[in-house]
Amino acid sequence: MTKKISKEKKMRTRIIKKAYDLMSKKGIDQVSMREIAEHIGVTKPVLYYYFEDKDDLCKEIIRESMCMFHKNIEDAYKSGATLEKLVELALRSQIEFFEKNPKMQTFILHIISYIMKGGKRGKSFMESENKKKEVFESLIEAAIKKGELPAKAVKDFCALMGAQTSHIVLNFKNPDYVFDKEYPSKITKIIFLGLKEYYKE
Amino acid sequence: MTKKISKEKKMRTRIIKKAYDLMSKKGIDQVSMREIAEHIGVTKPVLYYYFEDKDDLCKEIIRESMCMFHKNIEDAYKSGATLEKLVELALRSQIEFFEKNPKMQTFILHIISYIMKGGKRGKSFMESENKKKEVFESLIEAAIKKGELPAKAVKDFCALMGAQTSHIVLNFKNPDYVFDKEYPSKITKIIFLGLKEYYKE
Repeated sequence: MTKKISKEKKMRTRIIKKAYDLMSKKGIDQVSMREIAEHIGVTKPVLYYYFEDKDDLCKEIIRESMCMFHKNIEDAYKSGATLEKLVELALRSQIEFFEKNPKMQTFILHIISYIMKGGKRGKSFMESENKKKEVFESLIEAAIKKGELPAKAVKDFCALMGAQTSHIVLNFKNPDYVFDKEYPSKITKIIFLGLKEYYKE
Repeated sequence: MTKKISKEKKMRTRIIKKAYDLMSKKGIDQVSMREIAEHIGVTKPVLYYYFEDKDDLCKEIIRESMCMFHKNIEDAYKSGATLEKLVELALRSQIEFFEKNPKMQTFILHIISYIMKGGKRGKSFMESENKKKEVFESLIEAAIKKGELPAKAVKDFCALMGAQTSHIVLNFKNPDYVFDKEYPSKITKIIFLGLKEYYKE
């Protein structure tokens, strides 16, 4: 890596980290690109050299933090894990992710609000979400082929798994719920048992 | 009802409706009590005669819209419906509620953001949520007595049901998911089958 590229990569990471800190504290809406630049200690043109707009910056914050998450799932898939194990891993990774990045929960909620409002930033987040969807869809397809999931159960499987993801996003800090070490495997087992019973011939 | 009380009740309802419209459009944070008063066409003191602060107003907006929802569940419970039927009804009511009140989804997300930030308004919402919790807990207790749910399955039952509620809140407008007429009964059946299999002796 040349010195310049390495320096730019470092700056990029620094901007993402600092911008994330500021926006998750004050709210995405409440922070301008000028304020982000000031917070980092760079000029606005420098900030715009790295990121097109706040939209682009938000997208990269999410992408950056999801990267490791997706890598884990793909690695497990490549080493032959069953769909049930992959789902368990996904829930476990999400819980560990929120444990390590407590502010991310608020940030994701902000982004979801944007999506609901139909804003440009919402759309860009959906694009990065679509990548996740593609990976997810190929995992499901393989599981159907291997007989781990009945083809007609896919819609319900997605609704039950998507619900768990939403649940962790919304209730991670809710004292009424406990996301302990046993949670991912237990909930996954119950869901797969339910699907199996419902769709048995 | 005296003329004065009737008039005040009407005004109260009018304020709740108008404030909800304004806040769900602009965001709770972005709207001041002054702006709400102007939007309704009353003075600030009139607004404060009805509601202590924005906190109180938000709480009442949620309370008002949840009222019918809880009444349906309690009525079904009194007429002897099983826990499975009650859960199905709860999910169906939530879906119908969002169909009738599409803006409520954004509003609930705003409130959840407040709860996460630990604000005063968040706390007041949690108070009204606690009422719902009490009703919910007594339904579960009765279901355990009737043998509809194993006592040790309660935590997982709540996690699976809470997840469905979160899922509908976050993904109601997400084109990847379909909340059709069959959804509540199908998902409820799968969840109960899963719990039954997992906890069978």
